[in-house]
Amino acid sequence: MVWCSGWKLASAVSNAGGLGLIGSGSMHPETLEEHIVKCQKATQKPFGVNIPLLYPEIEKVIDVVIRNHVKIVFTSAGNPKTWTAKLKENDIKVVHVVSSVKFALKSQEAGVDAVVAEGFEAGGHNGREETTSFCLIPAVSDAVDIPVIAAGGIGSGKAMLAAMVLGADGVQIGTRFAASQESSAHEKFKNKIVEINEGDTELVLKKLAPVRLIKNDFYLKVKEAEMRGAEKEELSLLLGKGRSKKGMFNGELDEGELEIGQVSAMIHEVKPAADILREIWTEYNDVKKSLC
Amino acid sequence: MVWCSGWKLASAVSNAGGLGLIGSGSMHPETLEEHIVKCQKATQKPFGVNIPLLYPEIEKVIDVVIRNHVKIVFTSAGNPKTWTAKLKENDIKVVHVVSSVKFALKSQEAGVDAVVAEGFEAGGHNGREETTSFCLIPAVSDAVDIPVIAAGGIGSGKAMLAAMVLGADGVQIGTRFAASQESSAHEKFKNKIVEINEGDTELVLKKLAPVRLIKNDFYLKVKEAEMRGAEKEELSLLLGKGRSKKGMFNGELDEGELEIGQVSAMIHEVKPAADILREIWTEYNDVKKSLC
Repeated sequence: MVWCSGWKLASAVSNAGGLGLIGSGSMHPETLEEHIVKCQKATQKPFGVNIPLLYPEIEKVIDVVIRNHVKIVFTSAGNPKTWTAKLKENDIKVVHVVSSVKFALKSQEAGVDAVVAEGFEAGGHNGREETTSFCLIPAVSDAVDIPVIAAGGIGSGKAMLAAMVLGADGVQIGTRFAASQESSAHEKFKNKIVEINEGDTELVLKKLAPVRLIKNDFYLKVKEAEMRGAEKEELSLLLGKGRSKKGMFNGELDEGELEIGQVSAMIHEVKPAADILREIWTEYNDVKKSLC
Repeated sequence: MVWCSGWKLASAVSNAGGLGLIGSGSMHPETLEEHIVKCQKATQKPFGVNIPLLYPEIEKVIDVVIRNHVKIVFTSAGNPKTWTAKLKENDIKVVHVVSSVKFALKSQEAGVDAVVAEGFEAGGHNGREETTSFCLIPAVSDAVDIPVIAAGGIGSGKAMLAAMVLGADGVQIGTRFAASQESSAHEKFKNKIVEINEGDTELVLKKLAPVRLIKNDFYLKVKEAEMRGAEKEELSLLLGKGRSKKGMFNGELDEGELEIGQVSAMIHEVKPAADILREIWTEYNDVKKSLC
């Protein structure tokens, strides 16, 4: 949710009864602090911060969340052993994002409070195992004793119910909120999410770090390079710096990196976060009732 | 289900209340005829035949199913327009297997009675869109008016219920029955299915025809070639002929092609098909009740 989930989206989700998350992956520590303070003013409800652990200024980021009394941290992209203890000493609930059973078990061992099991269909960065939500949710929930939050492919009430049926204790929803009114992404990117159809994203850049992107001009260049066996160095050069900002924040749809999940195919309108949450919740209850 | 689903498995599934399918992809027309006749003797219940439409002896295969009064045909890997009319003129229900919304719509247009929507997690040959069951089931069921049968990732009652919640009208189960007692696969392959874990399969050979395989020695060779950008011709040579028979029927686990779905990670025992079906059905009903 880089470039999408700032204080506006996080507080809107929390105010509407979800647990809003500030995505710190696209923020300098000072920017993150600003977002946390604004979020605290915008909602009385709990919210969390997502921290990619490989972030270069990670120590400062951890300090920011502790100093600002953030109560819930979702960590991803890194070893949960490194920071979980420190966060928990500061009374912070820690949830780690995983894409395999192996890392779910490692996270449990590291003492996290819950895991997010993120399937292959999810947007942005993803695991190497390519296990889909259908297979990952039951496998992870069988393997660990802590709560499992399902992510990847969930943008509707029936998808939420399906995830719970498969063994999830809760769900994490990204893509659907990337196309919300409160998302800080560029309008052009939000409209693109609404426009695209089934089959319009792909997990690429597997030699660097696998990432699911919309099939735009930049994707075509990556794909061409990958098909002829381009090495890490060439792909790294092709990717360059700041390409996700270019695409998702600046709205350069052809040359930017457009990170989104497969479930984008089912999104047909940009809406307020509260409406999205209400619709998901209503559909969840309706479909559940219809089974009885 | 090549090398797995002959008359023994198909009749066992039909006798236990499912719709058994004979997988004709690994059979010469005479062998298929033999299997159909034996299946008719082994069950009074309906069963079907799966026909990959790109099969070289396709005309003979179509003649065999018509001549032997098969009532249900599942077609895959080819254009549904070519044979649907002829099959339907002969009172045969036709179901076409698709991996995208685009081909689901084309199948409906071709006059098929239902589609199988097969997700990325499924074993064996698969689509280029890489859409997972979580995203494919609702997308296809929104797009078409005919019944949708979900496949890919389904080997348990809760997975069946999740598929129905996402909009499926029924499910097709392959992998779980590949490891049944009645499966005609080699014992070594069945034991391998039981043994492997989450992350132990991958969709490869995308430059030829994408196929999900167990990560064995043959897979490693394919992967190495693909990573350096090997072209179609080299991959085709590497694959050679009869490699799926070698792996799945002859039990050469290192050098054979071992086609299986991601859900293999959740299979812990080779069982009679009737037990599998009963367990799925019981779990489906139990989980459904627990929601009410």
